[in-house]
Amino acid sequence: MLQTISWTGQAVRLLDQTRLPTETVYVDITDERQMWDAIKRLVVRGAPAIGVAAAFGVYLGVRNVSDPAEFPTKLKDVCDYLGTSRPTAINLFWAINRIQKHAAAQPDYPVPSSDGVRRIKQGILDEALKMLDEDNDVCRAIGRHGAKLLAEMSTGRDRIDLLTHCNAGGLATVQYGTALAPIYIGAKQGMKFHVFADETRPLLQGSRITAYELQQNGIPVTVICDGMAATVMSQGKVGAVIVGTDRVAANGDVANKIGTLGVAILAKHYRIPFLVAAPTSSIDLSLASGAQIPIEQRAASEISFGLGKQTTPTNVEIYNPAFDVTPSELVSAIITENGVARAPYEKSLATMCEPRIGTISLSPGTPAFGSEAQAALSNETNTPRKPAARK
Amino acid sequence: MLQTISWTGQAVRLLDQTRLPTETVYVDITDERQMWDAIKRLVVRGAPAIGVAAAFGVYLGVRNVSDPAEFPTKLKDVCDYLGTSRPTAINLFWAINRIQKHAAAQPDYPVPSSDGVRRIKQGILDEALKMLDEDNDVCRAIGRHGAKLLAEMSTGRDRIDLLTHCNAGGLATVQYGTALAPIYIGAKQGMKFHVFADETRPLLQGSRITAYELQQNGIPVTVICDGMAATVMSQGKVGAVIVGTDRVAANGDVANKIGTLGVAILAKHYRIPFLVAAPTSSIDLSLASGAQIPIEQRAASEISFGLGKQTTPTNVEIYNPAFDVTPSELVSAIITENGVARAPYEKSLATMCEPRIGTISLSPGTPAFGSEAQAALSNETNTPRKPAARK
Repeated sequence: MLQTISWTGQAVRLLDQTRLPTETVYVDITDERQMWDAIKRLVVRGAPAIGVAAAFGVYLGVRNVSDPAEFPTKLKDVCDYLGTSRPTAINLFWAINRIQKHAAAQPDYPVPSSDGVRRIKQGILDEALKMLDEDNDVCRAIGRHGAKLLAEMSTGRDRIDLLTHCNAGGLATVQYGTALAPIYIGAKQGMKFHVFADETRPLLQGSRITAYELQQNGIPVTVICDGMAATVMSQGKVGAVIVGTDRVAANGDVANKIGTLGVAILAKHYRIPFLVAAPTSSIDLSLASGAQIPIEQRAASEISFGLGKQTTPTNVEIYNPAFDVTPSELVSAIITENGVARAPYEKSLATMCEPRIGTISLSPGTPAFGSEAQAALSNETNTPRKPAARK
Repeated sequence: MLQTISWTGQAVRLLDQTRLPTETVYVDITDERQMWDAIKRLVVRGAPAIGVAAAFGVYLGVRNVSDPAEFPTKLKDVCDYLGTSRPTAINLFWAINRIQKHAAAQPDYPVPSSDGVRRIKQGILDEALKMLDEDNDVCRAIGRHGAKLLAEMSTGRDRIDLLTHCNAGGLATVQYGTALAPIYIGAKQGMKFHVFADETRPLLQGSRITAYELQQNGIPVTVICDGMAATVMSQGKVGAVIVGTDRVAANGDVANKIGTLGVAILAKHYRIPFLVAAPTSSIDLSLASGAQIPIEQRAASEISFGLGKQTTPTNVEIYNPAFDVTPSELVSAIITENGVARAPYEKSLATMCEPRIGTISLSPGTPAFGSEAQAALSNETNTPRKPAARK
């Protein structure tokens, strides 16, 4: 699978997603301004990937600061600066906060010695590398829980027919994806899939990125325009919708790429399950509802000139919100690394987010799919399994 | 207002809609092959405009035939050929049939004299010109009925907030439009509007054409991507949806540009009226339901390369139906030139399509809007007014 983010030892190597699907180009990011720009321009995108990228961005921003008197201020400035890149994905703030807390926990902070500065910088890099690893573990756990759920929902069918919007695949995370992880994990276990990828205007993450990564990984995929989702649902070609999220509120309201709300309403109309894959790092228990999630407004030119030529009249009014909020009553289930949450979400999401001994519950080795699918048929979906100690 | 189709005396002059919104270019069509291509490539598009264009296309195809022995076969061939250009819009077939019937009604048909051939050819041209005029009259009548209906629905509001999908405006007809006619007529009467124009992937008739003509005509318009319709509805910014149609079945099922079905489902979810503007020439009483309407499938390249650069991976599967069918239960009203039809549509549409003394009910002069809005509050909406003799 493609590597969205990696650490070269000197730089953060990003797959430039603005060039997909026609060019596979990596860019090396060496300072915080480049990282801010990469996040803003969607060179790297997808809530989990943005979080990890921002963590490395903090390291890049402070790695050349050696003066202990300057360090705490510089660290705060870099964190604040990176936080202005994109407002909606909670993972960005989650990652930056985690790095800040890690630094603040050092014994001589906020008045570090020179040695302390070196130690903190190394600690920040280590934490970013840890987040890179954890993201893989979290995505694989979401994949296992999601594959079980899909198997449970599709009993008796040869193939699981899905529709997804935007990209919450491997290219939205370090490697495995959230919404697409159940497909990759399920396919390894012998499950068959077909996926409709909404192209996802304006920036076409569906046709450019989801279609690309599914094709690369041998999963049958059909690209449709966003306005065709209702048609394929009406034809009985969609067994479930599965999407990612940029932030989930405590009540289960889900912020995700613009267009998701419409897909959720269509799914309700056609009685199709609407599933959201969300690492717990995307769940923001501090917000009571989705009304409090800040929605990024992006440039009109993404719509009027987004595809190489002018497609609107000059000076016409354009509205370009990057996200929408799907109310929790339209959400059938939220798949986290700790299990599957269902309504009432206030309770189930809080349970999913409880501190665990290990960050996530990974069982040792790769269990046979069959036994897990059987287990999924029991009533465990709303109760996360007892976390195992992290390896 | 822009003239979509006109007759120069030698050629059919079409505004090339593939070049909008950046270039306003007219092309002169001089034979039936050019007309077939213009319809296929959407140089001219919109069900009513296609009908008129096809009628002229028949004339162009036979105008140089003078041999009476050849004429009937050639006429049939030209009609059959033009009928293969696009399958969904009934107006195409309606117009071709009307031209054929007109020829067949000549006294010496199907064995015309040389004089008879000249007479039939002139008759075909006259009929096409008559259809051009009638289209204007029909659109203005739809505009009057629609403006009344919108005024009725928006009592007490300063502004009527609409959302439309694709383009059923002046550029989809000879001049006035169907779905946008109520806006133009209402604006002349002092009504205030704001219109959200869905961009309408893949060919962007909303952002390229609807936005262009509304802007040209001074109507406030905001372009959104198709996936943003749910968001603006959820924000209370849409008082009604109004769209055109390519074919309405006897039961009120409505074929229209792909994406319309989804908008109708969203409108139902948010309890927003979903209105369809349809000249009776778009109503096909021979089809019991929308399931029988043929849906045009178009080239994958409209999605993968539609906007100047490649936006999907090479060789990925793509599905590109050009139309969808909205079931009649999602349709609040169908506005025809003869009045407003409501459920049950079997009855109301049949009434709208009854032969009239004049083709449409145009009252003399331009009545003051206020009195019409008052009249609209009476129960006349489902009963077409007694047709006046055509001027």
